[in-house]
Amino acid sequence: MHRVLSAELHGHVGEQVRIAGWVHRRRLLAKVAFLIVRDRAGLAQVVMPPSVDLPAEETVVAVTGRVAANPVAPGGVEVVEATVAVLGTAEAPAVELFRPELGVTLPTLLDHAAVTLRHPTRRALFAASAAAVGAFRRALDGAGFTEVHTPKIVATATESGANVFAIDYFGRLAYLAQSPQFYKQTMVGVFERVYEVGPVFRAEPHDTSRHLSTYTSLDAELGFISDHRDVMAVLTEVLGAMVAAVQPYGFGGVLLPAEIPVVHFSQALSKLGADPSEPDLAPEHERALGEWARREHGSDFLYVEGYPMAKRPFYTHPQPSDGRWSNSFDLLFRGVELVTGGQRRHEYADYLQTLAARGESAAGYETYLEAFRHGMPPHGGFAIGLERFLARVSGAANVRQTALFPRDLHRLTP
Amino acid sequence: MHRVLSAELHGHVGEQVRIAGWVHRRRLLAKVAFLIVRDRAGLAQVVMPPSVDLPAEETVVAVTGRVAANPVAPGGVEVVEATVAVLGTAEAPAVELFRPELGVTLPTLLDHAAVTLRHPTRRALFAASAAAVGAFRRALDGAGFTEVHTPKIVATATESGANVFAIDYFGRLAYLAQSPQFYKQTMVGVFERVYEVGPVFRAEPHDTSRHLSTYTSLDAELGFISDHRDVMAVLTEVLGAMVAAVQPYGFGGVLLPAEIPVVHFSQALSKLGADPSEPDLAPEHERALGEWARREHGSDFLYVEGYPMAKRPFYTHPQPSDGRWSNSFDLLFRGVELVTGGQRRHEYADYLQTLAARGESAAGYETYLEAFRHGMPPHGGFAIGLERFLARVSGAANVRQTALFPRDLHRLTP
Repeated sequence: MHRVLSAELHGHVGEQVRIAGWVHRRRLLAKVAFLIVRDRAGLAQVVMPPSVDLPAEETVVAVTGRVAANPVAPGGVEVVEATVAVLGTAEAPAVELFRPELGVTLPTLLDHAAVTLRHPTRRALFAASAAAVGAFRRALDGAGFTEVHTPKIVATATESGANVFAIDYFGRLAYLAQSPQFYKQTMVGVFERVYEVGPVFRAEPHDTSRHLSTYTSLDAELGFISDHRDVMAVLTEVLGAMVAAVQPYGFGGVLLPAEIPVVHFSQALSKLGADPSEPDLAPEHERALGEWARREHGSDFLYVEGYPMAKRPFYTHPQPSDGRWSNSFDLLFRGVELVTGGQRRHEYADYLQTLAARGESAAGYETYLEAFRHGMPPHGGFAIGLERFLARVSGAANVRQTALFPRDLHRLTP
Repeated sequence: MHRVLSAELHGHVGEQVRIAGWVHRRRLLAKVAFLIVRDRAGLAQVVMPPSVDLPAEETVVAVTGRVAANPVAPGGVEVVEATVAVLGTAEAPAVELFRPELGVTLPTLLDHAAVTLRHPTRRALFAASAAAVGAFRRALDGAGFTEVHTPKIVATATESGANVFAIDYFGRLAYLAQSPQFYKQTMVGVFERVYEVGPVFRAEPHDTSRHLSTYTSLDAELGFISDHRDVMAVLTEVLGAMVAAVQPYGFGGVLLPAEIPVVHFSQALSKLGADPSEPDLAPEHERALGEWARREHGSDFLYVEGYPMAKRPFYTHPQPSDGRWSNSFDLLFRGVELVTGGQRRHEYADYLQTLAARGESAAGYETYLEAFRHGMPPHGGFAIGLERFLARVSGAANVRQTALFPRDLHRLTP
């Protein structure tokens, strides 16, 4: 008999059906027993005689029976006159998945991910994650972007130098890519507009609630822009799609106005009463700015543009009107940096000059610079941290809760 | 003025427009000059006076002018009375991108990828790649699958032991994941049906035309199957979508019948006249089988099922009727292995027994086995190598031609 999902049962009242899933809960009452079966679509109630030995929680079962309407059953239907067959045996886990909240410590949550991820709240979070990534891609596909897959093993520890993982590559030293930055720029020369969804690797020595040593980066890069404001416009559209995509999974209430407010870095410092020579925003600065954006603009998002050139990577394009500042931006989401982006340099001569000014040899960047030597348009892009996005929309206190199997300074399993 | 793409020009005849792109070719004739401009949508012809200094190939330009119909121009239109502004300067590359074929050696093709990828034949290949990946996801999204992102850094060199890259993980030894196998099985316990598109890492000491040290793996895994034939049915549907998706990019002519022929491994050996105790198929066996499938079944694809258990990983499910064989399969595409898949074991006790029989401690697999201890349905899955798929559909002789920036035993750049 063809399998029916729990969410489809209401369309089969009076019929014989076969459902399959995990025993989510056993309930033994005086005159009746219930087996609550969990499948990928939800929960189904199966009515059993009280005399039967009910299989342990998490046992995988197939149930055949008749669908009956019952207003007090979950979904208004239940399966009666049921026959249960075991498809996969189980020991009931120590964690009780049928409780509305998991109520476990972070180490337990992560150490036993194989089980805890089955909890409906965890499943909803990662279903929302998949929906957000799908929305990111669809928004960019619709805007003429092409998906690319770029190398995760690279020859040189460029970009930021520190915080790279070294690997033994057939006896040579190589590194894990910290970002697809150089490759996505190169691919603007090919497709004009590209995106990549993939892992990035940061040997972060910080043991904080918002750092992982590897995470999923949603990267985009586009050519033929006027400046970073064109990049922000694409990002705003992408975010709108992502925020809408997670809402059906219970993550609503995000304040995203049609126009996200923008402050210049220098304005932000003066608004905060901070030293105007500060080179960057501290986490408490970001929090305060986030509160201001919510209060004054009804927005959970805030663009801070014009970060000082001194603190930005060498490929950053300066602000044409004042070279101390850059055409770059961060996007704060509820007071935490979610996205970094901006306009990049596109002239070969500018790259040579900048690298020389920083005392770096262009030789280490030879294959990267080839793209600029042979014609690149004004371009820019951004990178969204998927786990941070999920932490913000779900209110998770720690970014480790929003990766399926997180990796950090201490954690390599499961 | 709003930018118009080359492919949209025919809808603007008589109007003033602005186009932008790369100088694909300069053609200086006696009384007229042509600038062929390449953008992400194609080529546009710009008519210039013969007296002007034309910018070098690959210079990035914006052109404003009037669109005129001209039956002999590419696309039937051209831009006249044109003003050209340079957006990005360029040295003309050594490789002539305007030739119909690149005609360069493999090392040149790969060393200068930043430039050679701009050639229309290369762009078409990787646009087809993006379309194939999109089709893979859409086919599975439509079948109730959920996308996941699993760790690429792992604590133990499990699965096949050899051929793993070691990394220095904050002073500890860790490894790059050879596949998402264990994680995608674990996630069947959560979502029933999952897929992942991501990099996998193989420290392949083979320097062949079909091995890369890292490639893009299209992985899927699904629960509640009867056996591996259910996995093959999903794969056949996915392949149909992928083959259809690449066709508009010039990669047609793939023979994919509604029913892909299936031979059992033991039948395949006897068909080949090979020793019936052979544990695996050699490349020349696969080629001969591919020719047979094309000749006898009009199919570029052939399933070989039932590979000997002895040569398959410990999680492979045996063939219930004869434990020498397995419920696994390979899919040959034009005589080369493209996909490996099959049914997996799902009972905890079976894993313990198998590992013990292989002399392996279950302790190294503790977090993986937790999923099976707490209830897993019969399940299976497959992994498609994206670069191999592209090599087969495009007729590329070497899989290095079908990765944007390939990595192998010797190559780490660009």
